[in-house]
Amino acid sequence: MAVKAQVLYDFTAEPGNNELTVKEGETVTITNQNVGGGWIEAQNSRGDVGLVPEDYVEVGKPFTAAGFTAPTPGAANIASQDLSIFDAYAPPSAPPQNQVDTEVFIPQPDTPDTPVSPYLSSPDETSNGNDPWSAWNSDPSGGSNNNWASNPEGTQTGTGAGDPWGSVSQGHPQAYQGPDIYPYPYLIDYAGTDYDEWDDEWDDAKSTGGYGESESGDGGAVQRAGAHAPSMKISLNKFPGFSKSGPELYLLCKQFTKGKERVPIYIGEVGPVWLYPETQLDCMVADPKKGSKMYGLKSYIEYQITPSNTNRPVNHRYKHFDWLYERLLDKFGSAIPIPSLPDKQVTGRFEEEFIKMRMERLQAWMTRMCRHPVVSNSEVFQTFLTYKDEKDWKTGKRKAEKDETVGVMIFSTIETEAPDLGAHEVEQKCEQFSRFTKAMDDGVKEILTVGHEHWKRCTGPLPKEYQRIGKAFQNLSTVFTSSGYQGESTLTDAMTAAGQTYEEIAQLVAEQPKKDLHFLMETNNEYKALLGCFPDTIGVHKAAIDKVKEGDKLVAAGKITSQDKVTMAKRVSTMSYSLQAEMNHFHNNRIYDYNRVMQQYLEEQVKFYETIAEKLRNAHRQFVTL
Amino acid sequence: MAVKAQVLYDFTAEPGNNELTVKEGETVTITNQNVGGGWIEAQNSRGDVGLVPEDYVEVGKPFTAAGFTAPTPGAANIASQDLSIFDAYAPPSAPPQNQVDTEVFIPQPDTPDTPVSPYLSSPDETSNGNDPWSAWNSDPSGGSNNNWASNPEGTQTGTGAGDPWGSVSQGHPQAYQGPDIYPYPYLIDYAGTDYDEWDDEWDDAKSTGGYGESESGDGGAVQRAGAHAPSMKISLNKFPGFSKSGPELYLLCKQFTKGKERVPIYIGEVGPVWLYPETQLDCMVADPKKGSKMYGLKSYIEYQITPSNTNRPVNHRYKHFDWLYERLLDKFGSAIPIPSLPDKQVTGRFEEEFIKMRMERLQAWMTRMCRHPVVSNSEVFQTFLTYKDEKDWKTGKRKAEKDETVGVMIFSTIETEAPDLGAHEVEQKCEQFSRFTKAMDDGVKEILTVGHEHWKRCTGPLPKEYQRIGKAFQNLSTVFTSSGYQGESTLTDAMTAAGQTYEEIAQLVAEQPKKDLHFLMETNNEYKALLGCFPDTIGVHKAAIDKVKEGDKLVAAGKITSQDKVTMAKRVSTMSYSLQAEMNHFHNNRIYDYNRVMQQYLEEQVKFYETIAEKLRNAHRQFVTL
Repeated sequence: MAVKAQVLYDFTAEPGNNELTVKEGETVTITNQNVGGGWIEAQNSRGDVGLVPEDYVEVGKPFTAAGFTAPTPGAANIASQDLSIFDAYAPPSAPPQNQVDTEVFIPQPDTPDTPVSPYLSSPDETSNGNDPWSAWNSDPSGGSNNNWASNPEGTQTGTGAGDPWGSVSQGHPQAYQGPDIYPYPYLIDYAGTDYDEWDDEWDDAKSTGGYGESESGDGGAVQRAGAHAPSMKISLNKFPGFSKSGPELYLLCKQFTKGKERVPIYIGEVGPVWLYPETQLDCMVADPKKGSKMYGLKSYIEYQITPSNTNRPVNHRYKHFDWLYERLLDKFGSAIPIPSLPDKQVTGRFEEEFIKMRMERLQAWMTRMCRHPVVSNSEVFQTFLTYKDEKDWKTGKRKAEKDETVGVMIFSTIETEAPDLGAHEVEQKCEQFSRFTKAMDDGVKEILTVGHEHWKRCTGPLPKEYQRIGKAFQNLSTVFTSSGYQGESTLTDAMTAAGQTYEEIAQLVAEQPKKDLHFLMETNNEYKALLGCFPDTIGVHKAAIDKVKEGDKLVAAGKITSQDKVTMAKRVSTMSYSLQAEMNHFHNNRIYDYNRVMQQYLEEQVKFYETIAEKLRNAHRQFVTL
Repeated sequence: MAVKAQVLYDFTAEPGNNELTVKEGETVTITNQNVGGGWIEAQNSRGDVGLVPEDYVEVGKPFTAAGFTAPTPGAANIASQDLSIFDAYAPPSAPPQNQVDTEVFIPQPDTPDTPVSPYLSSPDETSNGNDPWSAWNSDPSGGSNNNWASNPEGTQTGTGAGDPWGSVSQGHPQAYQGPDIYPYPYLIDYAGTDYDEWDDEWDDAKSTGGYGESESGDGGAVQRAGAHAPSMKISLNKFPGFSKSGPELYLLCKQFTKGKERVPIYIGEVGPVWLYPETQLDCMVADPKKGSKMYGLKSYIEYQITPSNTNRPVNHRYKHFDWLYERLLDKFGSAIPIPSLPDKQVTGRFEEEFIKMRMERLQAWMTRMCRHPVVSNSEVFQTFLTYKDEKDWKTGKRKAEKDETVGVMIFSTIETEAPDLGAHEVEQKCEQFSRFTKAMDDGVKEILTVGHEHWKRCTGPLPKEYQRIGKAFQNLSTVFTSSGYQGESTLTDAMTAAGQTYEEIAQLVAEQPKKDLHFLMETNNEYKALLGCFPDTIGVHKAAIDKVKEGDKLVAAGKITSQDKVTMAKRVSTMSYSLQAEMNHFHNNRIYDYNRVMQQYLEEQVKFYETIAEKLRNAHRQFVTL
């Protein structure tokens, strides 16, 4: 069957690279989806065949047919309970906006398959090339890019879908990609480097060569989803555990899987807290190296990660980080906001700067994960950081992919000796966190918006203006020099120096954002990504609270026993402790991060203004007091 | 005969003030031109009659009929020589663009009667109200507002009229009004104050009451021009002496008017210089007071001027300054650039700021005139500064108005003992000054253009941005305070302080231009006005040089004697000394002025950046090092 696809963006083939030039809106026929390396082979209407980046095309209707259902690994192995009883009490679901279940799986990390994708915005031709924030906050008012307004798949509560803070969703926060844009967006990558590595070499299997790579290296997501489609990769659901299991799976689970995993919660000074290790784990992401595959046709970047516990470096490609992200999201997403990885944008002109920026963001992401006592202590995270050899890594990967304690079942590992909380208190806490995270999200976005504006001004018109002031002084000085009048060299020299000073100031102004605003933006962007996870995380809790509230009705209807009801209340209390511990962790980190970034910002700003003042003082000294 | 007039600008009548609302483009019938106070009485097509500002209307064709010739007082009394001999050698004159000779005289200081008037530009609705430069440099590229490109009436030399620096003109530099715009242009004056006082009270004669003031207070310009039109004021030529007498008047004058006026030129270190007094005259313009006339219907402002030689204050209204300006222009304009007075814009919303700004500019103008040894030593200037009483003032005025040593005849008063200059040297000097003043004019305009841009940025978007940054920090701080997490008040207090600091910085940024850029702009604007006089001043010299070059032909044709030719060469040498002395004066002042203004600018800039750095340092200190 011929697979038709629509071209989303213009793509210009690089000569000698077997690529195919396509135009936005063009329809092509996909002739080989298994090329790998983030590419597909396509044929245009004139019969030309060549490679096209797979996220430049969107596969059409023929593959959105129903028939694939989303298996939920956790549920498949655990739940024998008939959960359909809840359907009667649940309000009708709004049509899912982020429906990805039934689409053909051509891994499209950032393909705009829904209007919420930030990539749908057209390239900002007027923006300064030096501005890494150009696509962030493209809709600060909270429009289609605002994931708070998105309506992810999953259980809906009674409140209006227009207010996501009132709605509960258990979906993957797909609408929110966090720091989601490459600093130089929309520019074609000249180097042919496969930054995203959305290929099929999930196990680094040796390439079978050229195009038409065999199905042996089948899609990780499919593998994880438990499905197997030998000739075609179908994304049944990229994040099955997290998105498909409602809280009832945990609330009414008869027996938890046995395992050594235990996540304790203590009552500390600030309230419920996770167990923090004596020595905080840290790691260093460094030394990006280019590797290649497909006989050198495509290359990729490998990073060296050195964890502080072993101090022994391991190597990982971006796709391994992405694999880790998905594992962590599957496993902890219901209890712990797992911010999405830095952007997956394929294209970019400045390879070195791109790699540097991605590394910096991977570092920030890893640091944040290391700082989380639950995440950093997890087996999958430790495997990622400390695997000994290729075999060890593969074993660890397979084990992690088979982990059944995912989705809401993570709550089954949480242990606390604190007394059970009442329903009211649980609800109150949840509401409080919801309000706070929403408010902070607004605040963070405001900073990002004004920071973005300020960045543009500081790298665009402002230095140009200082340069023009500098030139104007120097030009007038040159005119004065031509006067033929004697004895004015002191003035003209001083005016030239003053002019040069303003040119230097122009340079300082243009470079300053990288020295201070950059970190303020990065930090706020990390928080934006983190806060973007809260609607879903809190949504799980709200859904659980709602289920408990229905307890009496369910007992009355004979759907559950009184004991079930008691168990549910107990378990929702555990969930609340988990949420509180997480919020306290969040607050603690937030205070640390903002204190640090504000200090750093102001320190650099002071230096900046002092440097300018000093330069001007020197220029002023050159004039003679008459 | 009914006088029709076209309305140039919209004017909205103030209730209870006998005014008539008119629209741009409307035709009205003037029913009384002798209302005074800068007003005329007009009737619209619906028959309504009322007062309209006289410079809001332009009188139509009926009065542009020929028949009025421009008497040149200097010529009328001196020249018996038939100067038509030159016509044969002179290239055909370009049609005069600034033809005002045959227009009805409704004194219209700034009425846009030619396309070169800066007032023709439409109100800049988008400009910031705080920007006094909005109309200056409205055409930095040198378009219709660029008087260098204008083609004033008068003798033309052979070079293309497109290049005014190659063309010679003796016209009044009417196209160039210098600092010609009120900081708040196009805003209607609510106070009814007659800032320009273009009324008929040239001698402060008692008003005969209301409208229809008698012809007794007839137009000064008419009086000066020697014409007398009892029932109508006709502007035969506003600046007759200067604009109508070519250099031949002086070059071939048989006998100079006897007088005690002598303007000596010495050879100093830098070359020919004027005689400078031991003590430089200075004066202080201060204490603007509101007076009224027309039974309080119209008011005016009177300034107190205290010269340093008598230290005794005299009072003058703006119109007296304007009278002085015209006298100085008549008398010295051929030899000395007399910058036009500060703007004559009628309307303005912020009365106090307008008065302050005008006073500042009148001060600068007076200071420049005081600093000029020839101007400050002149009888008319001394009369203006030191008149003893009303009678003394009137006597002085009348005497000045009867002065015959005006226009090119000013050169007849110049005396130097230096040896005569050769024709080549004279021409070379003239070319050099022409090049320099043109280049400096470009340089000054560039500074004004970038300064104007910078002003707009500093008072518009930039402080808004700092304010938004400040607000964003404070808002996030408020969110943090609501977290319910204990022990973060140090952070939130510090963040609030940081936010407030950026709001303070916004304020500093917005106020800074008034502290530094203002003086840089004022100085450059003064120079723009001054340099705007050079094409005409230099034009007189170039025309004289051309006449001397024709000497041999004229002798051969028997039009002049050999002796006449020798006299001409001698006199053009005197003119050259005069020009050199003036250029040396200009350079000397220029070095002083730019040294001073650059120092002042940089000093204030240093303070500005230091203040910001200090504020940020204080904000930084509030954060705790973790």
